[in-house]
Amino acid sequence: MITSARGQCSKDQKVAIGVDVGGTKILVGYVTEDGHVLESRQYSMDRTSQLSALRSIDEAIDHFLQLFGDGPPAEGIGIGLVGHIDPEAGVWKHAINIPIHEPIHLSEKMEKRYGLPVTLDNDVRCATRAELLYGAGQEFKHFIYLNLGTGISMGIVSDGRLVRGAANYAGELGHMSVNTVGPRCSCGRIGCMETMASGGGMILRAMDLLSSYPQSTLNQYASRLQTDRIFIEALQGDLLAARIRNEALGALQISLTNVVNLLNPEAIIVGGGVSRDKSIVDDLEAHLRTTALPPAANALVCIEQSKLEVGRVGLVGAASLVWGGGINETHR
Amino acid sequence: MITSARGQCSKDQKVAIGVDVGGTKILVGYVTEDGHVLESRQYSMDRTSQLSALRSIDEAIDHFLQLFGDGPPAEGIGIGLVGHIDPEAGVWKHAINIPIHEPIHLSEKMEKRYGLPVTLDNDVRCATRAELLYGAGQEFKHFIYLNLGTGISMGIVSDGRLVRGAANYAGELGHMSVNTVGPRCSCGRIGCMETMASGGGMILRAMDLLSSYPQSTLNQYASRLQTDRIFIEALQGDLLAARIRNEALGALQISLTNVVNLLNPEAIIVGGGVSRDKSIVDDLEAHLRTTALPPAANALVCIEQSKLEVGRVGLVGAASLVWGGGINETHR
Repeated sequence: MITSARGQCSKDQKVAIGVDVGGTKILVGYVTEDGHVLESRQYSMDRTSQLSALRSIDEAIDHFLQLFGDGPPAEGIGIGLVGHIDPEAGVWKHAINIPIHEPIHLSEKMEKRYGLPVTLDNDVRCATRAELLYGAGQEFKHFIYLNLGTGISMGIVSDGRLVRGAANYAGELGHMSVNTVGPRCSCGRIGCMETMASGGGMILRAMDLLSSYPQSTLNQYASRLQTDRIFIEALQGDLLAARIRNEALGALQISLTNVVNLLNPEAIIVGGGVSRDKSIVDDLEAHLRTTALPPAANALVCIEQSKLEVGRVGLVGAASLVWGGGINETHR
Repeated sequence: MITSARGQCSKDQKVAIGVDVGGTKILVGYVTEDGHVLESRQYSMDRTSQLSALRSIDEAIDHFLQLFGDGPPAEGIGIGLVGHIDPEAGVWKHAINIPIHEPIHLSEKMEKRYGLPVTLDNDVRCATRAELLYGAGQEFKHFIYLNLGTGISMGIVSDGRLVRGAANYAGELGHMSVNTVGPRCSCGRIGCMETMASGGGMILRAMDLLSSYPQSTLNQYASRLQTDRIFIEALQGDLLAARIRNEALGALQISLTNVVNLLNPEAIIVGGGVSRDKSIVDDLEAHLRTTALPPAANALVCIEQSKLEVGRVGLVGAASLVWGGGINETHR
């Protein structure tokens, strides 16, 4: 998938290689310092084991360089990864969707292999960096990047800087408990957001409830059920789909009001697959305006879908790690 | 209440006047740049009206200067106030405990009256500044200052900087909803922390339930009931007191696990009247270690009572506003 002519890159424009490593696919691309993707290609991830996953990443970059290695010389490689990352040490510490059970010094390994500086960060923090540099950050100093996808997480920007926390682990909104009588989460707690409002949680919840709704049109999808389908059927009046959608929306309403009261952002920028249902974003905005504390609600300019391309935001943010700022300025 | 000999102040030591304005009392003091209180005096607040409240502040500072005005020349006045403050504009925007319904340019008014630079901030942010400069901040870059008093709020420090939010209103933990079947809060939502775990909330809850617990020893205190008494009677086995304490602890457990997952702090520093019950702080630490997500729990070094004097932390933080940093470095 070559996405734009290489000719768009002027001779003076600096270029980095970005790598966005997700649970099922790896996106590799040439990205300019101002956030334009010159070339990109998608590869599949073999997550059978830690070894196979690391081999998939190597092979993806190798193949990309074979195709485009005669392109502009890259200043470095920036890699966004699911899971827990130590950007300073260049270590991929742990992941669940991809079986990373042993911490690996990925940047050192990659620097040896490719002879370029390599920087790592968590994928949601990469997407938040992309918003900060090329999207919402051009308007807002204080914002939340909310990723509604298979899981739920967020990036926090305060005064133009990423809030990373002590171990680069801030932003686990998916594990905010909002319902003392809700379902039990894989983390052990009751009523976590993720069990009700993530893509994965909604599908599990629908599966659990299918037998109680024998008339539901969702029965015909069974194991092939996707969240898009739940939203469509909810609008068509399917009772189970409407219940799943309403539970998701309810959990988002409570948790985001909590977040607005706690962090007082100017904007909430919503990305990830579930955000494509604009009615969810609009419902949330209307709810927050009336339920957040007045000074926090008044300061909230908007809650809106990301203006960056949903499939590329992680890639662009990963590449931008090469231009620095992400570690030195915001993480000690 | 003169608290220490003026002789402790060396000639080179810079001094500021700190003013800590609470719902019932005003504390005024001379504080050195390294956070030592040289003199302090407590005055009462007349909160009959906005006018009477402002007059109380003037009279407190006037009287303090009459007593100690021949002391070291102060570099400025720093004032910590309940409610919503705009530190850049020097405006006290709104408060509920003290009836501030019309925004007032307090710093301009005070600068004219006293001929000194005047800086304002919210009281919990002042206490968090004191921790940052003179307490927990000496050990930790990422911490939460949790104020458990009549209300509940918190200050957030990320990478050594205060997280203020867009309108200097971040930190409203008291209005994190954690219980979908809990009591209705004055903010309109269900199950806010403050209804269950604040001093004010616990007392209201006890009053509501007294008639269902005719045997409870709390009946003899009625309108004079204090949270200290609830904790003492809970330990003695009183069923109502134990219920109130357990509900408070449960709400704190859920909300602080949420906060640890969201912000990944190294430490939670607990101040305010309710924090004097060390068993609450110890229970919370044990709970967080097992319920927060492992990377967040592992990064949490401690949850502990503030080492700064509970009655002075706001005063010291208010005075420290005079030395800057609070606005220019962390708020735009």
